Amino acid sequence: MPRVGGTVAPGYEPVRDAFAAVLASEPGHAAQLAASVDGSPVVDLWGGPGLDGDSLLGVLSVTKGVAFLAAALLIQSGELDPGREVRSYWPQFAAEGKAGVTVGELLTHRAGAIGTREGFSPAELADDALIAGRVAAHAPYWRPGSAFGYHSLVIGALTGELVRRTTGLTLKEFHDRRVRVPFGVDLHLGPPARDVRRVVDVLPPLAPPPGPPPAADSLLGIASSAHHPAFLPPHLLVNDPVFRAGGQASAGGVASARGLARFYAVANALLTPATRRAVARPHAVGHDLVLGTARAYGLGFLVAWPSPGGGAFGHDGAGGSVGLADPRHGLVFGYTRRRFPSRDAAADGVRLLRAVRGCARARRG
Amino acid sequence: MPRVGGTVAPGYEPVRDAFAAVLASEPGHAAQLAASVDGSPVVDLWGGPGLDGDSLLGVLSVTKGVAFLAAALLIQSGELDPGREVRSYWPQFAAEGKAGVTVGELLTHRAGAIGTREGFSPAELADDALIAGRVAAHAPYWRPGSAFGYHSLVIGALTGELVRRTTGLTLKEFHDRRVRVPFGVDLHLGPPARDVRRVVDVLPPLAPPPGPPPAADSLLGIASSAHHPAFLPPHLLVNDPVFRAGGQASAGGVASARGLARFYAVANALLTPATRRAVARPHAVGHDLVLGTARAYGLGFLVAWPSPGGGAFGHDGAGGSVGLADPRHGLVFGYTRRRFPSRDAAADGVRLLRAVRGCARARRG
Amino acid sequence: MPRVGGTVAPGYEPVRDAFAAVLASEPGHAAQLAASVDGSPVVDLWGGPGLDGDSLLGVLSVTKGVAFLAAALLIQSGELDPGREVRSYWPQFAAEGKAGVTVGELLTHRAGAIGTREGFSPAELADDALIAGRVAAHAPYWRPGSAFGYHSLVIGALTGELVRRTTGLTLKEFHDRRVRVPFGVDLHLGPPARDVRRVVDVLPPLAPPPGPPPAADSLLGIASSAHHPAFLPPHLLVNDPVFRAGGQASAGGVASARGLARFYAVANALLTPATRRAVARPHAVGHDLVLGTARAYGLGFLVAWPSPGGGAFGHDGAGGSVGLADPRHGLVFGYTRRRFPSRDAAADGVRLLRAVRGCARARRG
Repeated sequence: MPRVGGTVAPGYEPVRDAFAAVLASEPGHAAQLAASVDGSPVVDLWGGPGLDGDSLLGVLSVTKGVAFLAAALLIQSGELDPGREVRSYWPQFAAEGKAGVTVGELLTHRAGAIGTREGFSPAELADDALIAGRVAAHAPYWRPGSAFGYHSLVIGALTGELVRRTTGLTLKEFHDRRVRVPFGVDLHLGPPARDVRRVVDVLPPLAPPPGPPPAADSLLGIASSAHHPAFLPPHLLVNDPVFRAGGQASAGGVASARGLARFYAVANALLTPATRRAVARPHAVGHDLVLGTARAYGLGFLVAWPSPGGGAFGHDGAGGSVGLADPRHGLVFGYTRRRFPSRDAAADGVRLLRAVRGCARARRG
Repeated sequence: MPRVGGTVAPGYEPVRDAFAAVLASEPGHAAQLAASVDGSPVVDLWGGPGLDGDSLLGVLSVTKGVAFLAAALLIQSGELDPGREVRSYWPQFAAEGKAGVTVGELLTHRAGAIGTREGFSPAELADDALIAGRVAAHAPYWRPGSAFGYHSLVIGALTGELVRRTTGLTLKEFHDRRVRVPFGVDLHLGPPARDVRRVVDVLPPLAPPPGPPPAADSLLGIASSAHHPAFLPPHLLVNDPVFRAGGQASAGGVASARGLARFYAVANALLTPATRRAVARPHAVGHDLVLGTARAYGLGFLVAWPSPGGGAFGHDGAGGSVGLADPRHGLVFGYTRRRFPSRDAAADGVRLLRAVRGCARARRG
Repeated sequence: MPRVGGTVAPGYEPVRDAFAAVLASEPGHAAQLAASVDGSPVVDLWGGPGLDGDSLLGVLSVTKGVAFLAAALLIQSGELDPGREVRSYWPQFAAEGKAGVTVGELLTHRAGAIGTREGFSPAELADDALIAGRVAAHAPYWRPGSAFGYHSLVIGALTGELVRRTTGLTLKEFHDRRVRVPFGVDLHLGPPARDVRRVVDVLPPLAPPPGPPPAADSLLGIASSAHHPAFLPPHLLVNDPVFRAGGQASAGGVASARGLARFYAVANALLTPATRRAVARPHAVGHDLVLGTARAYGLGFLVAWPSPGGGAFGHDGAGGSVGLADPRHGLVFGYTRRRFPSRDAAADGVRLLRAVRGCARARRG
């Protein structure tokens, strides 16, 4: 069995076993796991080559939680109204038939504003201001509101632009001032110089590779920017120095598992129960037009942990990382993995989440 | 060939042959079939072990027709308005983001109010008042109106609560006073003591059994209450004495085929042509989010007999029973079967309905 | 290699090769291809038995473009408002629950008015006035607006009726006076006597035939009128003399490839950039309820060439023909083929469109 570092609280020993089994499931597997229950840390584990508990990894779409928490806080304070049109905050967004899109529709992947016909280079993907401007000027890929589909690489930029328009702060500034610095959350949109040395490269998937890129002329291809000549698959994009430094809000963050768990602990603390219910409410459930599979979105956050309606909210990423809050079990959870998964990206996270929940239920009775 | 009891009118001999063929298609098959055309009984048949023409069987979702007919009658009289919000009749239903749900959306399986996170025990499933209260207080499983999915075990309770709020009568009282007793309809929500002896147990399916229960964390699992520790599959639930006595309106009714045919004859008589068209209009056609298959719902009733737009309305059940009105052919139809089907639950009913229609067309010219 | 007649402009030689390869891909294949870039003809080719550059072929659903261009012109002039209800122009359309359908919903296949329960004979399918009247009086096959599905054989009649109600001209008169005659467009709704001799019969598909007709009780069957006793599959319907002479607007047109390319050149010239963007905007993207596959519709026109959002708009047909405008590449395109395709109807057109685009990009730099 691989060596597992770190600690678990009494009663959470099965989680250590499950974590060791996950590490053993793939040669060279390295990962971090952290969880708290009812405010107390119960799991803080790591293992595998090149990682310790302080390492930072590119977490791809897990980053989106930063943008959605910012939106939730602004909705809670009344600065942002999910029922109002995006253009009332951001006039340029009205272009090309998007005048009627509400903030709530944007957050729930209903706007159809998934990309542009030119696509984005890796360097452009690092620049949320550029992304927001281009997508705002572009026609939607379906009639807004008529369907929903994952705005994979741009939802963070679009949400962040709403933050900037309502607060005057960039999303990174908002996150740093309101969440990261005051609460010591190890989740960064472009890590500070002193933290860069803790960043560890994501490793490519074991053979077989994760398949061909999506067809350039599909909605998935457009949302993935696969039609751009300089397209990089996500396991390479995530390590690109410019992309990583840019800390774009859809996929560019770096974090430790501890950072992800703490991020959701802060989310739980800052959001009232009513706001938490509002963000975890299943606003878009069913066929995702871009991914072609079933998904369940709340106000941005993914909410099927494991099924919609349970009150949990969070996000996962293509690299297998995940962070979430599960108020019903009093639980926050973070998981990162270093090697890009070959198959089901969410498998490790689901397995470990079940293990933590099982122990939490047994302890809480 | 199995012995077939009962009679057919001249010109309907092919239906007797089709019924005998259905009985012969499975060892120990027992079933009832009844139909009227233009007000006259044309088919009254039964056969197979343990059944005669007077036997009552648990008909599972065929029961829902009772609730939908009550709603249709109240819509016709103006006591219930499909365009108004459910909360205007039932304030508690507004909880957790369901304030905007209209009566029409509820009836067409668009509310997302398919169940609760705790699920229901078999005993709780027998109690529509309990179901209505719990589901009303619970968050929906998708944004109401954004999709539709079968509210398998609760739509009868929710519809029945609307009946109670508008008339002061429970659904059972409404059904008994307005439909069952005055017209002698042998379809019961909890059979009277003198009729209990006519109830025959449903038999489990032949090997192979109907597969594993739905995943507890799927929408189908939640709608089926498969996540409750005391989950019973439908072929066992239907025979549960408490469940059967409760006569819950989504799946708890018992009936004979004659009773089902007569129920729809009464529906035809009590509803004006305009109301019949309104209930048979395809309000929700396409992908059912819970079942994962294509469905077509009118105002509650299923309306694809065989395709939406033909004006027929009715309901089938997981046990293979079916009841419907087909005004275009002047036809009402009831079918019950004793053994739970192993495969396509609707196959027998579709086959026999075609046979009856063929004869009706030939006779009517 | 088959002999290819006609000419290509300098730099478009690869298109000639691609066209020859298409002709060689099937025994006895005959086809026409025409394209212009930035206003100048660059491709004018034909080849295979029985066809020359002047031949006219039944183009089935490519015909629909005539109706959609007329609607676009009336929207541009303000005579037709996509946000207004159809009934404000055409009161009879309000019947049976269709009162709320807007012009935009009708054009985007959302009305559910795909056919009638009786279906249409081939002779009836030739008569758009009859089709419009019957469908207007009929109940929709889903709740209007709740889904979209291809109104295969009737959308031209319904759109044409709006043209008639707003202008006093039949769609054929509108097309002849505003498009065909003034600009010499070889695309006819019922060809004039002197052009009939140029019409060439479409040939049946090579073995295997295109499969059984759609199930009579499916939405596809109803939209295809497959439930009518006199049903003809499209490769026979297209040659029916009455159908061809009627020139119905959903599938009854005849054209040459030159005619299709010129039709879209005229569309480009008559529509302002804003209108072109409006018609090419993806109004209905995703699962087509009738076809059961993914589609992307603008204001009637198909808009995924190759993906929605690129600004191209046009239509293809079951016989393999296609016409479209691609303003981004300054390109218009027409393709017809004589033999009904056995498999993917759009394959030839997609292949040749790519060849033309490749040359256009290389030339325009």
